Amino acid sequence: MTSSALAEHIETVALVDHHVHGCLLRPIERRRFENLLNEANVEPLADFDTAFDTQLGFAMRAHCAPLLGLPRHSDADAYWRARSALSEDDLARRFLSSANVSDWLVDTGFAAGVADLDAMAGLSVGRVHEIVRLESVAEQAVQASGDYTAAFTEILHERAATTVATKSILAYRGGFIGDLSEPAPGEVAAAAARWRDSGEPRLTDRVLLRFGLHEALRLGKPLQFHVGFGDRDCDLHTTNPLYLADFLRRTGDVPIMLLHCYPYEREAGYLAQAFNNVYLDGGLAINYLGARSSQFIGRLLEMAPFRKILYSSDGFGPAELHYLGARLWRSGIREVLHGFVDADEWSEADAIRVVDLIARDNARRVYSLD
Amino acid sequence: MTSSALAEHIETVALVDHHVHGCLLRPIERRRFENLLNEANVEPLADFDTAFDTQLGFAMRAHCAPLLGLPRHSDADAYWRARSALSEDDLARRFLSSANVSDWLVDTGFAAGVADLDAMAGLSVGRVHEIVRLESVAEQAVQASGDYTAAFTEILHERAATTVATKSILAYRGGFIGDLSEPAPGEVAAAAARWRDSGEPRLTDRVLLRFGLHEALRLGKPLQFHVGFGDRDCDLHTTNPLYLADFLRRTGDVPIMLLHCYPYEREAGYLAQAFNNVYLDGGLAINYLGARSSQFIGRLLEMAPFRKILYSSDGFGPAELHYLGARLWRSGIREVLHGFVDADEWSEADAIRVVDLIARDNARRVYSLD
Amino acid sequence: MTSSALAEHIETVALVDHHVHGCLLRPIERRRFENLLNEANVEPLADFDTAFDTQLGFAMRAHCAPLLGLPRHSDADAYWRARSALSEDDLARRFLSSANVSDWLVDTGFAAGVADLDAMAGLSVGRVHEIVRLESVAEQAVQASGDYTAAFTEILHERAATTVATKSILAYRGGFIGDLSEPAPGEVAAAAARWRDSGEPRLTDRVLLRFGLHEALRLGKPLQFHVGFGDRDCDLHTTNPLYLADFLRRTGDVPIMLLHCYPYEREAGYLAQAFNNVYLDGGLAINYLGARSSQFIGRLLEMAPFRKILYSSDGFGPAELHYLGARLWRSGIREVLHGFVDADEWSEADAIRVVDLIARDNARRVYSLD
Repeated sequence: MTSSALAEHIETVALVDHHVHGCLLRPIERRRFENLLNEANVEPLADFDTAFDTQLGFAMRAHCAPLLGLPRHSDADAYWRARSALSEDDLARRFLSSANVSDWLVDTGFAAGVADLDAMAGLSVGRVHEIVRLESVAEQAVQASGDYTAAFTEILHERAATTVATKSILAYRGGFIGDLSEPAPGEVAAAAARWRDSGEPRLTDRVLLRFGLHEALRLGKPLQFHVGFGDRDCDLHTTNPLYLADFLRRTGDVPIMLLHCYPYEREAGYLAQAFNNVYLDGGLAINYLGARSSQFIGRLLEMAPFRKILYSSDGFGPAELHYLGARLWRSGIREVLHGFVDADEWSEADAIRVVDLIARDNARRVYSLD
Repeated sequence: MTSSALAEHIETVALVDHHVHGCLLRPIERRRFENLLNEANVEPLADFDTAFDTQLGFAMRAHCAPLLGLPRHSDADAYWRARSALSEDDLARRFLSSANVSDWLVDTGFAAGVADLDAMAGLSVGRVHEIVRLESVAEQAVQASGDYTAAFTEILHERAATTVATKSILAYRGGFIGDLSEPAPGEVAAAAARWRDSGEPRLTDRVLLRFGLHEALRLGKPLQFHVGFGDRDCDLHTTNPLYLADFLRRTGDVPIMLLHCYPYEREAGYLAQAFNNVYLDGGLAINYLGARSSQFIGRLLEMAPFRKILYSSDGFGPAELHYLGARLWRSGIREVLHGFVDADEWSEADAIRVVDLIARDNARRVYSLD
Repeated sequence: MTSSALAEHIETVALVDHHVHGCLLRPIERRRFENLLNEANVEPLADFDTAFDTQLGFAMRAHCAPLLGLPRHSDADAYWRARSALSEDDLARRFLSSANVSDWLVDTGFAAGVADLDAMAGLSVGRVHEIVRLESVAEQAVQASGDYTAAFTEILHERAATTVATKSILAYRGGFIGDLSEPAPGEVAAAAARWRDSGEPRLTDRVLLRFGLHEALRLGKPLQFHVGFGDRDCDLHTTNPLYLADFLRRTGDVPIMLLHCYPYEREAGYLAQAFNNVYLDGGLAINYLGARSSQFIGRLLEMAPFRKILYSSDGFGPAELHYLGARLWRSGIREVLHGFVDADEWSEADAIRVVDLIARDNARRVYSLD
């Protein structure tokens, strides 16, 4: 299999990682490192547990160990020792360059302890673009004096001048169920006043969340949504993208990017077929599924038209994640597409064309990267 | 694999397509043709997109191109040219006869621009039977003068004399969530009066939808439900068949046929195990999944007893769909069942027996076709 | 494949079956036997149907027939004759010993017509431990005189002295949707009084169900939940374990065991990653999926950390189920893990280690079996 033109193309194509975060800048403790390998848990891992005994942990030992000069499947302690012997900067250059990514689209909305845009660009591992998080804009706007709406739109437009997309974490701020129509100006002003009075730094008010989404639509740049799998601050069942259907009916031509989607990837694929402006990726689920990620990648290739599917790693923190997302995506799509080609359901030429669409061309078109 | 008795039987068994629509009668434009290859979208496809770059498009180029004298995987333009060189009548005969279907059960409820029963019968590609759509009966009844209930039951019984089943598109008219009990006569009369006054041609009133379902149950013929995947006029999450559970508890012995079911095929399989009178198929999802359809067919073979699973294409419009449903079902079930037999989990004789149940025998029994 | 160290280890490792019921004690009629092979239906099977024509039926004929001296895939009548020639006691010893289970954790909450703890122990097929069902405790407490709360806690603590876990069938008594917080003492007393007055033997009152759960948490022993697939008395959509998220946030360190989980095994896996104290198994779904169970076992190995996954058969009644659960789990996990190892995604040593965790070590740790 590995000697085919398809397999070779998959190995060498440069990717656009259309949703990612900064990598670590400074060494961290092992327990903290392990917790960064568990997406869903928001507490320290239990004493009896270890993030190395998961699909992600096994995948890291299989694929990242060789980049540290270790044999494949080296054990957790050996892996940790080898990793600890290198600086985070060295690790970042090593892993990110091995990902073979031409463009990193970086969500800077949550960036505690990780590289900012300049630091990412400084690694010289590909072009860096910014994605602006709507809830961060709101949390800045509420700190400003004067009219909230004016402050929000001013900050958004200022940021938008240098960013390629917006992003919403509505999934973590109440989920998708319920009215997502544009609120009236009076409602926005009242909600903003209540929020300011509360002193709460985090945006959870539904009116203002809706306001932000519709301002983003007005801006016209692609709007990314965290969908499905994430930490337990979200109630997973409220992040089923089908609950976005009414909202999507009002989004016109603005590209809506459904990120991660697990375990709702088939629902997301249906939406990508149903709406000309809806797209999806497998995002961080690919890393977390490890040896099981090819089945997931297969499900991403069901109802969604091939011009509506993208690649992302959603890497955050350990630089392994920025690499592993690409590594597992390459292996997974190779397995899936080779299956189609070997069964003569697809031609090899078509398979190569679909690889290019998902790896880079769809992202370049949607984000106008060239 | 292909030389086994099982594989040969799967290739040659004549199918009952227990839910299908008419095929095209007149040539259409390419954009319209492509839109007919997208089930979920109700708008023209975006300029950057093409229905040829989907699983269905690839499957059509793989399996239908040879029937047009083209090599497998011919490109979209070549395919379109070859198709355009033939009359729709010629295309219909070619594709429908190649499907090797003995009986077509035709839903005539939505038939704009496609063959009616006589035209389907005139193709001489198998026996033709009618399925009457409950919402169409209602939409006729509301046009009649006098008592709505009397008009509905009169039309239903008149139609039923020559039809093998009823069909409901409740999925598109509000979905399955909520009370589906039989409404009182006074409620029905009041709702019918409101509907008549409104002048709205389409039935969306919940009381009258419920009324129609219970009249269908009284009739005793199999009642088909559109379930899951369809166009975006339905909110997909409201078409999860689990929401039908209370209704199913009141359906007695009347066969209830759950159609398509994606992405709720496992839930539908559970219902087929839980209720003696519940059945399922994979319907149009098989066409839309193309090279991924074998995994879906595998999931149809989970909780549902083998005497409760049927075949349908749900072909509508392009005659390719009437053929491709059969072609992909044959390939998919061959892959799934050969897997079971090769692992010695099933005997080959059992596998052949299950093929016959799904391909024709369950449908013949349920619809009393012989 | 079968000659590998991994395959050999999987075949020979002794299992902990952490959730099971008694096996049959007395011969039963064939129709009753077949109905015991259908989990979801609560009515007699339809005349046209047979439980032998299901995945479970085929798996039984493949794997249990040889233990009765028959060829693999013997037909239903031959199987029934051979089975009928043996006593239930003989069948139980034969099948349960062949399961190679070191410890059976027996839910005694529903035990009509099946072996009790002493009878299970008398078979000498492994150690026997008890799981106490919370709803049974409640149904005893309501029969006692005096204060319901006092009676419940007294019975629970008395039973708990000799049991390894508690179990809730909340799934069958209204499902997981809604408030699951601890009710106030006054609410409990009022609800208990209402229940006593009603004369209804079965607990369905939501306040008392919630009360029972929180008493179980206070006890500190692992708390098992029936999740997903079961008989149609539950509305399957209300048993999605994601609806337990708020409850789980209040369960501290008490192990919460999600049983069966089909078709919500991916959601359960997410919860096992999100909460240090949440575990899952595939339970009775493995038996019912037969030749399809390896795909299900694969999905159990997605988001859940490997120290949070357990084995159970949930066998109830026919002794075949106690054996078949183990047989299918061994075959299924062999197929899944060999796939990982053959692709060099996992090392064989890691795969063997994960087998031990799931087969026995996680259960031993959680239930303090040693």
